[in-house]
Amino acid sequence: MISGKNIIACEQSANGSNTYRTFDPLLNMDNEWQFIEATDSEIDLAVEKAVQAFETYSKKSGSERGVFLNQIADEIEALGDELIAAYCKETGLAEGRAKNERGRTVGQLRMFAKLVVEGSWVQATIDNGQPERQPMAKPDLRKMLFPIGPIVVFGASNFPLAYSTAGGDTASALASGCPVIVKSHPMHAGTGELVASAIVKAVSKTGMPKGVFSNLNSTGHEVGQKLVEHPKVKGVGFTGSIKGGRALYDIAAKRDEPIPVFAEMGSINPVVFLPRALAEKKKEWAKTYAGSITLGTGQFCTNPGLMLALASDDLDEFIALLSKEILDIAPMCMLNPGIKNNYATNKGKMMQQQGLTVVADYSQEVKTNFAQQAVTKVSGAEFLENSTLHQEVFGPFSMIVACKDVHELTLVISTLEGQLTGTVVSVQNEIKDYEKVVTALQSRVGRLIFNGVPTGVQVCAAMMHGGPYPASTDNRFTAVGIHSINRWVRPVSFQDWPNELLPNELKKENPLGIKRNVDGNWM
Amino acid sequence: MISGKNIIACEQSANGSNTYRTFDPLLNMDNEWQFIEATDSEIDLAVEKAVQAFETYSKKSGSERGVFLNQIADEIEALGDELIAAYCKETGLAEGRAKNERGRTVGQLRMFAKLVVEGSWVQATIDNGQPERQPMAKPDLRKMLFPIGPIVVFGASNFPLAYSTAGGDTASALASGCPVIVKSHPMHAGTGELVASAIVKAVSKTGMPKGVFSNLNSTGHEVGQKLVEHPKVKGVGFTGSIKGGRALYDIAAKRDEPIPVFAEMGSINPVVFLPRALAEKKKEWAKTYAGSITLGTGQFCTNPGLMLALASDDLDEFIALLSKEILDIAPMCMLNPGIKNNYATNKGKMMQQQGLTVVADYSQEVKTNFAQQAVTKVSGAEFLENSTLHQEVFGPFSMIVACKDVHELTLVISTLEGQLTGTVVSVQNEIKDYEKVVTALQSRVGRLIFNGVPTGVQVCAAMMHGGPYPASTDNRFTAVGIHSINRWVRPVSFQDWPNELLPNELKKENPLGIKRNVDGNWM
Repeated sequence: MISGKNIIACEQSANGSNTYRTFDPLLNMDNEWQFIEATDSEIDLAVEKAVQAFETYSKKSGSERGVFLNQIADEIEALGDELIAAYCKETGLAEGRAKNERGRTVGQLRMFAKLVVEGSWVQATIDNGQPERQPMAKPDLRKMLFPIGPIVVFGASNFPLAYSTAGGDTASALASGCPVIVKSHPMHAGTGELVASAIVKAVSKTGMPKGVFSNLNSTGHEVGQKLVEHPKVKGVGFTGSIKGGRALYDIAAKRDEPIPVFAEMGSINPVVFLPRALAEKKKEWAKTYAGSITLGTGQFCTNPGLMLALASDDLDEFIALLSKEILDIAPMCMLNPGIKNNYATNKGKMMQQQGLTVVADYSQEVKTNFAQQAVTKVSGAEFLENSTLHQEVFGPFSMIVACKDVHELTLVISTLEGQLTGTVVSVQNEIKDYEKVVTALQSRVGRLIFNGVPTGVQVCAAMMHGGPYPASTDNRFTAVGIHSINRWVRPVSFQDWPNELLPNELKKENPLGIKRNVDGNWM
Repeated sequence: MISGKNIIACEQSANGSNTYRTFDPLLNMDNEWQFIEATDSEIDLAVEKAVQAFETYSKKSGSERGVFLNQIADEIEALGDELIAAYCKETGLAEGRAKNERGRTVGQLRMFAKLVVEGSWVQATIDNGQPERQPMAKPDLRKMLFPIGPIVVFGASNFPLAYSTAGGDTASALASGCPVIVKSHPMHAGTGELVASAIVKAVSKTGMPKGVFSNLNSTGHEVGQKLVEHPKVKGVGFTGSIKGGRALYDIAAKRDEPIPVFAEMGSINPVVFLPRALAEKKKEWAKTYAGSITLGTGQFCTNPGLMLALASDDLDEFIALLSKEILDIAPMCMLNPGIKNNYATNKGKMMQQQGLTVVADYSQEVKTNFAQQAVTKVSGAEFLENSTLHQEVFGPFSMIVACKDVHELTLVISTLEGQLTGTVVSVQNEIKDYEKVVTALQSRVGRLIFNGVPTGVQVCAAMMHGGPYPASTDNRFTAVGIHSINRWVRPVSFQDWPNELLPNELKKENPLGIKRNVDGNWM
């Protein structure tokens, strides 16, 4: 049951008078639920309750937190069809996608549960003391990671489950021992409330302090801004636009006590097609990339928005094939009229740029809120001169840059802003002759992909989802995979501390049996 | 030989016309050397050369970088007495301290050499692919840490060797694969130039690209500001005042591409004396703390500027003993007249605060630039009301806060700003009764110390030197020990990348034999 209310420390709350509805882009009409925006006092209460909860929640054992995270996963699954229906009504996405994303979401929760139950993630590092050392005794030092405090998570428009209410940011923060306050995404507030209700049930069933979770509704920027400004909030997770992420980063940097903002923002994910790959496999790659560009109506942060190659007849043939393939794909609905309008505007603006050629533009009429996919082409020289061409068009759009030589190709890559991914399409040995191209690409991205597509982000330890600015605000940390827990923690050392008062992770006898670095050796 | 010139990409350069001298605080007169400030074009050249050098230096193997770091250590030792003499003339510190600090400096360089030669520090993480996985193949993903680019290091006034030209920031950045541009500290520009000359020799002898190191002179803020603003600089290390560190942080946060600033700034390092420890061991602790407060003329970032206890007769007796002990210590020279004047001003300001009692103030005449140590006392209530009392007085100064009960003691700790360290003085079991006090203390610090003094920072893996703001700007990273290398790196993932083109650290056959996490297991 979607009530439209906020959830403050696991209790429903609706003191405000500003209301809004979510929108069904397929039916092109408002959904039935009405949501009540959080008020300033509700924001304060959520933070105060989180601060109180932190005292006890941060001291729960990894096993206890693991039970909690698994219970959240169970409760999300128990929401059944109601969740899937709300998801579809608020996004225009298909049921299959909704179910996949739910699977990914509960999978992430269980992955973090496993991580904290096992316990070695705290990076316990021990230097045994040497009381007899000359000229001075060497103290005993033991260090591990501790949670930092209340975290604000902003729901993402394009992943209502996997990067929102109980998505990767929330799961990793809760796993680390931090309470979470979600700023619900206004486009899928109903989906968010259902997931929030699952977390509430899990809190109750596993005896966690209620302040460990809140879910606040809002349509504008004020609620999010107030949360990031709040002196007791200690960290922020965000997935969205460069403008939005940078605004939050700037607010956090101006605080008396600056706090980290992990904003995963814009990326056009350059793909380099090497000449022999185009000569030998143009047909296969045209088909593959038509699929990647339009996957999820192009609404992925890893969408391939930029394709780079050396000008050649093979490239022209590839473009013709890609054009045909992409126009054969049935247009799909976008998440929301606002996103659809931005797509149309930005695509239109791009197509008016000097020297740009439209090589494919779905020109048949489409249903309201459906996107008309397009592919364009410019020369390397034009791309280097016009920074507008470097900007992201969020949706099923891509641009091919035809470079006159390898030098220009390398230069184009070097002038790109930071990106989440960079891909090289090659026949097996060809890439060896392009070392400078690869070096340039590596300097601009967080993940390099060989002979694949950037869409699809495997949730695993070796994943880096994040890249040089503006792909993300802090590219030392990944937003996906177990290492994303490191965003919400800081190390604390204990010097000559009594063994019985140390956290279990650092006690001499290692009661948890975790992996630790002792005097330089992993034990 | 100290020339007074800048070093740009290992070449002497002196295009500017602004000059300055360093000062001998013991003799109270200028030193003989004249230094030429770096110009804007010299700054640009240093950064450009660093960018060029990064291309090759970042690809040097760990073994090659290890040889380079060890050679720097050798060259610093080869400077012999000239270095020690310059150090003493520019700081007023004793020869013994100079030699100790030199030992720490070369020790750090050799520690990082060992780390990168061994190679496991890159945190290689591998998820083998599962091409047969259903419904989709699992890609092969391999992740490790890579250096981020040119780093600016600001020399620290209080550690001319260990935290300056070839100190911990420089050593860790060079170890990671980043070129370094040092903004030389104006108080010890001669010491800095000598160390810089050692690095230049090491660059030449080990065949490193010259742009890997520059050393720029300056007295004002302009050179440092321009360096941090420079779009091609990728990170900053700083040790100094809150005002200075915050100014650099703000500049970096406002850039089009924000960069990390690791500023290690102010800390008053609270020490909690528990009642039984005071009752049973007041004499020993008074002697120990008189020594810690005055060590290095109180010019350590870990100086115990704040002592907390419950009001009692034992506390009064402890104060009397501490007062006697501290007045028995011969006053010592400060680093510079500017630092001495700030000490006198800040001490004077503190002593005028309402309700504060001066319990010890060295009132006999002292030599010019010598500090008169002092200890003061306030009640918990007064401390809670007056935030001026929370500020650092850099020098041999400390304040005792007498709290009326445990609740007030906990409150006092909770209201403190972030600190590098927090110490508890206790008889062995007593601390168990003060769980809330310890929890509050842990929330404010990076390192907890039991029955010791905060001065003395062991260089080891388990050390955390850094703490919640304003102790440091980014308390997820330590400034001391091997983990400080993590400040200058970012992870990059390789997806389905050809094995022969992977960095050696990630190749299937593990040619370097490093420790790696493979499919969740450390191998």
